[in-house]
Amino acid sequence: MQAQLIALDWGTSSLRAYKLGPAGVVLEQRSLAFGIMHLPSEPRDIAGVRCSDGFELAFDAACGDWLDAQPGLAVIACGMVGSAQGWSEAAYRNTPVDVASLGQALHTVRSVRGVDVHIVPGVIEQVGLPNVMRGEETQVLGVLQDLGAEVLIGLPGSHSKWVEVVDGCITHFDTFMTGELFAVLSKHSILGRTQKVSEQFQGAAFDRGVQVARSADGQRGVLSTLFSARTLGLTAELTPEQQPDYLSGLLIGHELAGLPTGARDLPIILVGAAPLCARYQRALALCGFARVSLAQEATERGLWQLALAAGLTQPSLEA
Amino acid sequence: MQAQLIALDWGTSSLRAYKLGPAGVVLEQRSLAFGIMHLPSEPRDIAGVRCSDGFELAFDAACGDWLDAQPGLAVIACGMVGSAQGWSEAAYRNTPVDVASLGQALHTVRSVRGVDVHIVPGVIEQVGLPNVMRGEETQVLGVLQDLGAEVLIGLPGSHSKWVEVVDGCITHFDTFMTGELFAVLSKHSILGRTQKVSEQFQGAAFDRGVQVARSADGQRGVLSTLFSARTLGLTAELTPEQQPDYLSGLLIGHELAGLPTGARDLPIILVGAAPLCARYQRALALCGFARVSLAQEATERGLWQLALAAGLTQPSLEA
Repeated sequence: MQAQLIALDWGTSSLRAYKLGPAGVVLEQRSLAFGIMHLPSEPRDIAGVRCSDGFELAFDAACGDWLDAQPGLAVIACGMVGSAQGWSEAAYRNTPVDVASLGQALHTVRSVRGVDVHIVPGVIEQVGLPNVMRGEETQVLGVLQDLGAEVLIGLPGSHSKWVEVVDGCITHFDTFMTGELFAVLSKHSILGRTQKVSEQFQGAAFDRGVQVARSADGQRGVLSTLFSARTLGLTAELTPEQQPDYLSGLLIGHELAGLPTGARDLPIILVGAAPLCARYQRALALCGFARVSLAQEATERGLWQLALAAGLTQPSLEA
Repeated sequence: MQAQLIALDWGTSSLRAYKLGPAGVVLEQRSLAFGIMHLPSEPRDIAGVRCSDGFELAFDAACGDWLDAQPGLAVIACGMVGSAQGWSEAAYRNTPVDVASLGQALHTVRSVRGVDVHIVPGVIEQVGLPNVMRGEETQVLGVLQDLGAEVLIGLPGSHSKWVEVVDGCITHFDTFMTGELFAVLSKHSILGRTQKVSEQFQGAAFDRGVQVARSADGQRGVLSTLFSARTLGLTAELTPEQQPDYLSGLLIGHELAGLPTGARDLPIILVGAAPLCARYQRALALCGFARVSLAQEATERGLWQLALAAGLTQPSLEA
């Protein structure tokens, strides 16, 4: 099947490349460790030019052979590749944004082989506390087909995003530093000293953490409940193996308690790694959120939609 | 002036020794780096016995000469020296506790020179989420003279404690991991990467952090506001030099938002290092707490009161 688009999901720690066919179907995909903070450095010839630029080298490794085989293919990319530390900075676009407006705002960088890479800009919200995202906007736009007028899309991770979408438009979003906080507390704080990592998910401990976050104690805030991850160990109510999942449930519970009022009435779509989404799904159920579903292939679908809006490719007639 | 008591404030990272005279007046004091996690290890003769135990060596370094000069002196100690990782474990006492009940519950360890060291037990609260402290109970009991029936005592630090006292009795307390969270976020998270430490206190940035914590945004919780310490840098609203104090104000503001309802109506006493107490005093004023004062010499006064209650020393007639 003839390829129609190369789509790159290029973040801080990894680079995923998709060769997409008619209607955006995935023909081939690759995952490389060449995130923007881990670029290759060994000089190499690309299209007859000696090249030592890490972005060029990573780009060539990801899809040079696809371009050799089909030179006219369009290329679109999202994620931190468009940040100030990326290949070329794609300035943030203000909310509200939708597929059409973002697709028309792609930022172009020309690679040494003469191919233009079209980079999706990140999104900034400047109403109230400023908030930014790069990459998540593409995932959000990738899951919007067949959804109702108003949805809330959760993207759990180091910096979880919760994105409100109205009529296909990203209108508002929040960032919760839940994943990174879990990591630094487990690795560098007193809480980590009594934790023992278990192979097995400790469901009861996780649930207890969620419940504490939504209890009267939890309303005093996470700074106040955190220490319980230690004291419940001291009082033998949590084993060392249970403490990591208790802390995970506690932090996720506090995150969910911070969702906008009205979130409970919206359909919620989770986008992200399956094990993490499973934790959020469990916590959402405990907190009484009833309409939760999971989305797949959000990034590649979003990149396809944006490439369509930009005129980089055509909707397939036979789709 | 004749000494009446040796009082040790023996924590994780430091050991402070006080030689107290009549009425608990401080005759001499020392600060050593020999916290329970940093004990000396070089073997030495103590009272004619070859000794390699770190607690014995630190104890001798702190007050061996005082005991040589006045062998009958009583010794009292508080802090992590009584923890499971300390010299000898002094089991936690349940709330409520006061000077009399805690003074009668001292735990004794006999040093190699034949002197008994009387260790103040820590305090545990097991109503709701468990909470523990070791050392802070002594500071609290040291500042209770001349106070009203109900006070709230704040002890800012790595693990800030807020202790409610009714009629001289510790009835309830909370722990906020504010100081440790500030440290691990600054050192190990993405927030630290754009921070630049400034010699000068950035008051406006600190105040802004406090205000965000008590704003409508702040009510969504600290997990949600944390990222603003980065985004306000991205939007050039905070310089790199302002970001650390913004984060400090933000976290302290969230801590204060988590104080018990009714805290606003109580007199508040702050106990701790002067620069940190100054930050809390500033934040408390911004948050509308009117009756705030600072206490001095809380530990040595508390140890004196507990030694009196234990009968280890006598109140001075001429005091």
